[in-house]
Amino acid sequence: MGNTFGHLFRLTTWGESHGGGVGAVVDGCPPGLELSADDVQAELDRRRPGQSRITTQRQEEDRVEILSGLFEGRTLGTPISLLVWNKDARSKDYEEMRVKYRPSHADYTYQEKYGLRNWMGGGRASARETIGRVAAGAIAQKILRERCGLEIVAWVDCVQSLQANVDGATVTREDVDANIVRCPDSSVAETMIARIDEARKDGDSLGGVVRAVARNVPAGLGDPVFDKLEAELAKAMLSLPACKGFESGSGFEGTRLTGSTHNDAFVSREGRIATSTNRSGGIQGGISNGEDILIRAAFKPTATILKEQETVDVDGNPTTLKGRGRHDPCVLPRAVPMVEAMMAMVLIDHYLRQTAIRS
Amino acid sequence: MGNTFGHLFRLTTWGESHGGGVGAVVDGCPPGLELSADDVQAELDRRRPGQSRITTQRQEEDRVEILSGLFEGRTLGTPISLLVWNKDARSKDYEEMRVKYRPSHADYTYQEKYGLRNWMGGGRASARETIGRVAAGAIAQKILRERCGLEIVAWVDCVQSLQANVDGATVTREDVDANIVRCPDSSVAETMIARIDEARKDGDSLGGVVRAVARNVPAGLGDPVFDKLEAELAKAMLSLPACKGFESGSGFEGTRLTGSTHNDAFVSREGRIATSTNRSGGIQGGISNGEDILIRAAFKPTATILKEQETVDVDGNPTTLKGRGRHDPCVLPRAVPMVEAMMAMVLIDHYLRQTAIRS
Amino acid sequence: MGNTFGHLFRLTTWGESHGGGVGAVVDGCPPGLELSADDVQAELDRRRPGQSRITTQRQEEDRVEILSGLFEGRTLGTPISLLVWNKDARSKDYEEMRVKYRPSHADYTYQEKYGLRNWMGGGRASARETIGRVAAGAIAQKILRERCGLEIVAWVDCVQSLQANVDGATVTREDVDANIVRCPDSSVAETMIARIDEARKDGDSLGGVVRAVARNVPAGLGDPVFDKLEAELAKAMLSLPACKGFESGSGFEGTRLTGSTHNDAFVSREGRIATSTNRSGGIQGGISNGEDILIRAAFKPTATILKEQETVDVDGNPTTLKGRGRHDPCVLPRAVPMVEAMMAMVLIDHYLRQTAIRS
Amino acid sequence: MGNTFGHLFRLTTWGESHGGGVGAVVDGCPPGLELSADDVQAELDRRRPGQSRITTQRQEEDRVEILSGLFEGRTLGTPISLLVWNKDARSKDYEEMRVKYRPSHADYTYQEKYGLRNWMGGGRASARETIGRVAAGAIAQKILRERCGLEIVAWVDCVQSLQANVDGATVTREDVDANIVRCPDSSVAETMIARIDEARKDGDSLGGVVRAVARNVPAGLGDPVFDKLEAELAKAMLSLPACKGFESGSGFEGTRLTGSTHNDAFVSREGRIATSTNRSGGIQGGISNGEDILIRAAFKPTATILKEQETVDVDGNPTTLKGRGRHDPCVLPRAVPMVEAMMAMVLIDHYLRQTAIRS
Repeated sequence: MGNTFGHLFRLTTWGESHGGGVGAVVDGCPPGLELSADDVQAELDRRRPGQSRITTQRQEEDRVEILSGLFEGRTLGTPISLLVWNKDARSKDYEEMRVKYRPSHADYTYQEKYGLRNWMGGGRASARETIGRVAAGAIAQKILRERCGLEIVAWVDCVQSLQANVDGATVTREDVDANIVRCPDSSVAETMIARIDEARKDGDSLGGVVRAVARNVPAGLGDPVFDKLEAELAKAMLSLPACKGFESGSGFEGTRLTGSTHNDAFVSREGRIATSTNRSGGIQGGISNGEDILIRAAFKPTATILKEQETVDVDGNPTTLKGRGRHDPCVLPRAVPMVEAMMAMVLIDHYLRQTAIRS
Repeated sequence: MGNTFGHLFRLTTWGESHGGGVGAVVDGCPPGLELSADDVQAELDRRRPGQSRITTQRQEEDRVEILSGLFEGRTLGTPISLLVWNKDARSKDYEEMRVKYRPSHADYTYQEKYGLRNWMGGGRASARETIGRVAAGAIAQKILRERCGLEIVAWVDCVQSLQANVDGATVTREDVDANIVRCPDSSVAETMIARIDEARKDGDSLGGVVRAVARNVPAGLGDPVFDKLEAELAKAMLSLPACKGFESGSGFEGTRLTGSTHNDAFVSREGRIATSTNRSGGIQGGISNGEDILIRAAFKPTATILKEQETVDVDGNPTTLKGRGRHDPCVLPRAVPMVEAMMAMVLIDHYLRQTAIRS
Repeated sequence: MGNTFGHLFRLTTWGESHGGGVGAVVDGCPPGLELSADDVQAELDRRRPGQSRITTQRQEEDRVEILSGLFEGRTLGTPISLLVWNKDARSKDYEEMRVKYRPSHADYTYQEKYGLRNWMGGGRASARETIGRVAAGAIAQKILRERCGLEIVAWVDCVQSLQANVDGATVTREDVDANIVRCPDSSVAETMIARIDEARKDGDSLGGVVRAVARNVPAGLGDPVFDKLEAELAKAMLSLPACKGFESGSGFEGTRLTGSTHNDAFVSREGRIATSTNRSGGIQGGISNGEDILIRAAFKPTATILKEQETVDVDGNPTTLKGRGRHDPCVLPRAVPMVEAMMAMVLIDHYLRQTAIRS
Repeated sequence: MGNTFGHLFRLTTWGESHGGGVGAVVDGCPPGLELSADDVQAELDRRRPGQSRITTQRQEEDRVEILSGLFEGRTLGTPISLLVWNKDARSKDYEEMRVKYRPSHADYTYQEKYGLRNWMGGGRASARETIGRVAAGAIAQKILRERCGLEIVAWVDCVQSLQANVDGATVTREDVDANIVRCPDSSVAETMIARIDEARKDGDSLGGVVRAVARNVPAGLGDPVFDKLEAELAKAMLSLPACKGFESGSGFEGTRLTGSTHNDAFVSREGRIATSTNRSGGIQGGISNGEDILIRAAFKPTATILKEQETVDVDGNPTTLKGRGRHDPCVLPRAVPMVEAMMAMVLIDHYLRQTAIRS
């Protein structure tokens, strides 16, 4: 069941890193939306490996084909099938993985779960799986933009201990894409890039935090109990490879405040009810209140490194393993469009649910 | 759709804080389990308001009745209906809420979502809604314990900046329940209690962090992509009232490490494959690896305080509001059984899914 | 998973024929609908045993309580919990069932499925389970009526070989309820009643067919592939106890026509596109076309009879069994409100889905 | 939501009759199953147009590619993506459909539902959509065969009024495929073929009934209430193009019997509990009892005919329409593998559910 996300706007992804290709089926896209492969490709290019010297040098062109759901440039309301062929298979790089478990990868857990695994790569745990998410997210973002001017911007907020300072109310995607680390705070971006460069040369990897904002969110999205907007966003983020933490609004820091200093006072602003502060992160009781939605997602350093590590083989015997070839020293710049895509998918699903409830 | 959680072990909760009662329907409980209302009541008593001087003094007895799904002391495999009647309705306390929005409560967002609201209390955002969760969680935990010896223990890890130091590998529920703040580190528990007491007298509230461990988890639970075990746990936690953050394994702290220092080396231990460290928190590629699952959930200070606050009325006019009567100075001790319940529900659901896959 | 029906308007039922009670949770009911227990009770009274001499003489009052989801006479948009207590438990009637399997009942299959069963009655296979359906259907019908004037009327079309002749375009619920067999064709109703009376005296039971029409259905409801409106209606009907067959539009009879005689020509009527005939039964390609939806549901004679029958005991030894006390000689009159309820639930669910798609 | 079928074994289909291709994603296939494209192709060849003179002469090769989910000839437990490219697009045949609604097709209802439609063919209502179903059904049948020797056989039971007489207990797929009409009763098969041939020459179409049996079904499959095995099968059948009726066991005919003549007596047979007759069709209380499951599905004559018909254009003006080129005079022979596939998908889903419940 784990390969489908969403209820009314529903994404199913498929594909291993090795094998024919990867793809996605988007069910529930409203009919009549102008859409072309180019709309989707633009986002895939932001996710693509090899886009800069600080991401993996694996060369993947990742050209998307749309096989269904479109007619004369518009969505039909029927499933949209998206396909990207696999290319860059260097299977001899993987031969060692057949008999050894890579530390902190999914090799061992897949073997335990399924009794077998595609050892020529990461299987469904490969970052290639996120192609379908980013593709679907591009469609979701287009609808949200057209329907209610909703816009989503994510950026690299932290690399290790390097913390950016960015105003979520005004930051634009152009600001974010202005440098290769996708951190719109120019005072730390260069240091971040240098730090990643160093890790790359060292065959090591770095973690950090991506932050995201959604602006112009209508009040009323989200369900009160299990499908609280924050709960859905948390699941969306933690479903991304390497994500190990999530915060909404004031998050962990907010636990140090008292109720009287944490509560967001209601005020009247420009003819509508607003809050004077936004520690709630735009969500109260699990439902959007019309303020900016603000979240953070923590990504651990990626597990693939080029240093020698201790591990065991499939029979449990101690051995060592040393990654070869190309690795991704920091997943964060490429995680930015993934975070935006997942956020968009949560919001479009609840936007459609709310439409059903209140129309 | 937001009132149902889980797929194969499926909980639906219902009920407002005011009105007839609150309850739950558990669908998918395996047949043949010995179960009585007492099993459930024991956990509800740990969640109950008024259990100590540092929780809300609202007196709610919360006696559970099981209306279906049992026969001669065993589960039938059919839906288990659980009911707790509402009692302590002091509606005049709430009259003011009819015309004013309480800061950082769900009053305003419910009004925007539904166009009306039950202003006599928190509606579905009330902590009473969690009665059904804790009840269902008691059932889930009993199954997990009997089937694979799996045990879940949660505790208060942090009140504001007061940080406990607890060994997740050995802590027991008895340790946790040994004091009223449910923090098994006696070196900070008293200070935590004093701090909460102070907030209570001040009419204010405090936030903090609950940590939880699941031990004896079989390897192989969780799905690779959207239903990663961490993603499901994140959603489960963020669906709890006042929860604003989630961490799995090394969480936010882990983002400061490099891949070479973060990766968990595989080792052979007692005839099975294990890891030498557990920064993964028992989950790799979204799937349990047999190590302890370790998570943290951040809870903001509860919104209900007895101090005067600025807000607006339903027409948007500025006004002030001062809570009356009883409030909960710190939700954390009562959040402990809620966290355990939600964790149990995620694990039982994936335990049953895995059974379907591999049997 | 089998205890929940629908996606956006979602019904979960619970309860055995013996035990505390039976009930239902309706999730997804739009907010703001005027609703009282009386609205629901009116339909339950049409489903109630003991309502006439040709239904079971089991006396069940079946008073419904609404425990949540209402405030000041309106729905809140939150789950509506409905409860009916069990009363008429004559457990000594059932003692024999503990050791013998009743022919064509669910005793044996429950035992095989779950490894145990509530032998004091039919468990979830009891007709009491349909109380929750009829209650939820009353709510669904009220919404459909208010939103688009949609009305549903079902009637007894056939008892054994006694076939009624009724005009689906004009028949009203008053016509249906004018006699105790709920057949609005007075030329056969009396014969039907006499036939059932005879079966009752003989301790035997009769089957037949219920027909139903939905009028003023907006065009566009239903999904093209697996959730075709006919497919959903078929599932809804076959989920009713004793239902063994379903037809939409021309049904089985229509298979004897040729395409040229079966196709419904499109015409212009009163400013909208209509069809000159309605062999499609208001559904084309799985989607409503605005014409009356017409279906039929076949109900086998109920399995409980008062005659001696051959069977086996739980150890497989041949034995005989003779029902005692009261039985239902013909389920059809009470099936009428059940059919209406299930039809309403399918239509409201797709009405809400369509709202999400096209608003 | 309508493009996904099943819960634990879950099929999503995509693709219009015109456009890139059609395909399917199968999620939940157990890992370790030996599988190749050939296994799937064999069933697709039985569904293929142009396979005999009495089906449509449209030439579609329908070669399936498996793009994911397999490794070294075995299923991985991950989604299986199946793709068939579209070829035979004769768009000028369809130009007229742009402005006219074909009687009893989905043109008008799609337009009403979505506000636009792919007028170059039947869109999702095209029979090409069933390619994905037959492909997934081939996988499901292979698992059921290997796990419990379960076998499914469907055949043409009726063409118009021509009724076959076939023993469901013994009929084999070889018997069925022995003639082009897929009716294993040789005494009527030739007449059926002649009748269809005549309709083909006349540019008309014929309907009829497909019957199917599942043998060696374990007792205990199916859920008691909404997901009764019959309800699921009914939905599965009615979701097939042109299907307008469904019967389980004694079906409509059984409504003419009395309870005492309809009930299936339990007997002991070969050391297990069985029934002396099988009017229940292998399902009691919605759950399989171990006897053969027997169903019938009614298919109306297909709407596409080559005769002139009255209809309206998209503006509602009266006009006529005459199909051109190739048509399918009788869908029944090709419906046989579709019925088998859908039956298999229902059974595998409940087989996996039952595994989760009872292991």
